[in-house]
Amino acid sequence: VPAPRTVGIVGAGGWGTALACVLSHHGNRVLLWSHSPQTAEVISVQRENLAYLPGVVVPDAVEITTDLAALAESSVIVIATPTQRIRASISSVPPSLFRDAIVVNCSKGIEITTGGRISQVVQEVWGVDSQRYAVLSGPSHAEEVGHGLPTAVVAASDDTGVARMVQALFMTPFFRVYSSIDVVGVELAGALKNVIALSAGIVDGAGLGDNLKAALITRGLAEMSAIGEAMGANPKTFMGLSGLGDLIATCGSRHSRNRFVGEQIGRGRTLESVESEMKMIAEGVSTTRAAHALATNLSVEAPIIHEVYRILFEGKDTMTATRDLMQRAMKEE
Amino acid sequence: VPAPRTVGIVGAGGWGTALACVLSHHGNRVLLWSHSPQTAEVISVQRENLAYLPGVVVPDAVEITTDLAALAESSVIVIATPTQRIRASISSVPPSLFRDAIVVNCSKGIEITTGGRISQVVQEVWGVDSQRYAVLSGPSHAEEVGHGLPTAVVAASDDTGVARMVQALFMTPFFRVYSSIDVVGVELAGALKNVIALSAGIVDGAGLGDNLKAALITRGLAEMSAIGEAMGANPKTFMGLSGLGDLIATCGSRHSRNRFVGEQIGRGRTLESVESEMKMIAEGVSTTRAAHALATNLSVEAPIIHEVYRILFEGKDTMTATRDLMQRAMKEE
Repeated sequence: VPAPRTVGIVGAGGWGTALACVLSHHGNRVLLWSHSPQTAEVISVQRENLAYLPGVVVPDAVEITTDLAALAESSVIVIATPTQRIRASISSVPPSLFRDAIVVNCSKGIEITTGGRISQVVQEVWGVDSQRYAVLSGPSHAEEVGHGLPTAVVAASDDTGVARMVQALFMTPFFRVYSSIDVVGVELAGALKNVIALSAGIVDGAGLGDNLKAALITRGLAEMSAIGEAMGANPKTFMGLSGLGDLIATCGSRHSRNRFVGEQIGRGRTLESVESEMKMIAEGVSTTRAAHALATNLSVEAPIIHEVYRILFEGKDTMTATRDLMQRAMKEE
Repeated sequence: VPAPRTVGIVGAGGWGTALACVLSHHGNRVLLWSHSPQTAEVISVQRENLAYLPGVVVPDAVEITTDLAALAESSVIVIATPTQRIRASISSVPPSLFRDAIVVNCSKGIEITTGGRISQVVQEVWGVDSQRYAVLSGPSHAEEVGHGLPTAVVAASDDTGVARMVQALFMTPFFRVYSSIDVVGVELAGALKNVIALSAGIVDGAGLGDNLKAALITRGLAEMSAIGEAMGANPKTFMGLSGLGDLIATCGSRHSRNRFVGEQIGRGRTLESVESEMKMIAEGVSTTRAAHALATNLSVEAPIIHEVYRILFEGKDTMTATRDLMQRAMKEE
């Protein structure tokens, strides 16, 4: 058990709140930042995040704040805010405030405006180099983590010592952490899996069956892995918790926004019509654009990702896309 | 499109009947053998396998027989009978009858009495060497295949030419076949996945959540792959359709006997009590014994397989097994 630390968490949604519970386990002091005074007030007084993680007691060791600068005394900063808001959130304080802290990103996805991974965003805004950065990812529905159900994830850093420190910091009897040195792989896996989750949702919506869904997940994971390898990731990472594990949890979840968007499109609706009635955009929609471009530019064979792109953005019919996938030339596995 | 052939199928259950429909696609003549005169009569007269594949029309090109020797004119023999009955079924005719035929095994599992793979059983009984043998496997619920829903599988043979011939023979617009040369990997993957499906069922039954289930499938697949590699298989095979693909389809299926047995045990019942009320034994129960022994003898680290073994056969409590898995030493992924 490591010595207690002060840990700051940026973002008090379901995931940030669940991680606050995990991190308070070994006697750590946890500072949880919310952009919303109302959320901060509710958690602080009721010891429960009623809006985003109902039913979970927030331990007394967790202090709530709406002042991001109050996190300056933390030796570890955890990022758990929606991916597209990370830049705006962390830009509100000067980089000097967190000069010596280790930054652990727990959000998934690619920044739409720049196409960057979160490590790149944190580097640009706060000057956090790879020796101070880690990413934590894996199959981890926040409600289950909050309720203490067993969960296993992976923590990756270019610096083995940092990866091990983060592993020890988050590890509890219910939250198991594996370490890794493949930051690029873990970050890409967490983003790209949403494209394959969209394809699984499309199959569900179109009633095309469990055989096809299982085949798309399998071959889709191979496409994710090939893109990752072309970008310098270790392909084995995609077979681990941040790739396969998270993909299975997402494709099996009734709560996944990406699977839901796919399901609606599989039923014959257009992307515009589905998105018009959603409060939050599904990460996977923009990731599909990025993945389509990446595979093309890197000359990686990715027929599933390309068909998802054509269905979402070029109005291609699901049945035609399926037929085109099924009738490609005979291949070795 | 290959030239039409005469193909014999051993076994007229749901899978054998669905494969008869697939194989009749390119003008092949299909001889479908059933051990049951009643089943043969129903299929022959009604053109439908009412008991095992209701709602699917059996094409006229499929001829039904109860005389296994009538399959002698086939250039390809497909085995689609329950694994534990293969030896008895094929022993009823002299090996000389199928001296020149290619044998394609489409059943999954390990023979309980000998611990052998099906290629070994077919070699022993019919003298079929590896140059005349192929195995076809992947996520393929028979009902979906019978109804023409898109399905992708892998066909493996030591002989590349045989693998390609089998690939072309089975390929239709709805049934996509990849080729492989890893017979050991495809056979082991199809058997071992049932142990992990049991673990997924246990998690469901005990209400331990989707995070743990996704983690067990991910790490369980790594255990399957490690055992396979120690036995000469290509670990990549386990990431393909016969490994990961079939595992996903099995773990997501309400119909899987293995997942069902796991679920009942997760609810606190004993194996004896669950098995006493099932008509057919779940393959995965005996495969768990075999996998436990294999991992031990080969010194392969396989904590999930060992915990499934302890739960099934040593009465270990599910919660204790989960705690023991979660609290192992910190690892790299």
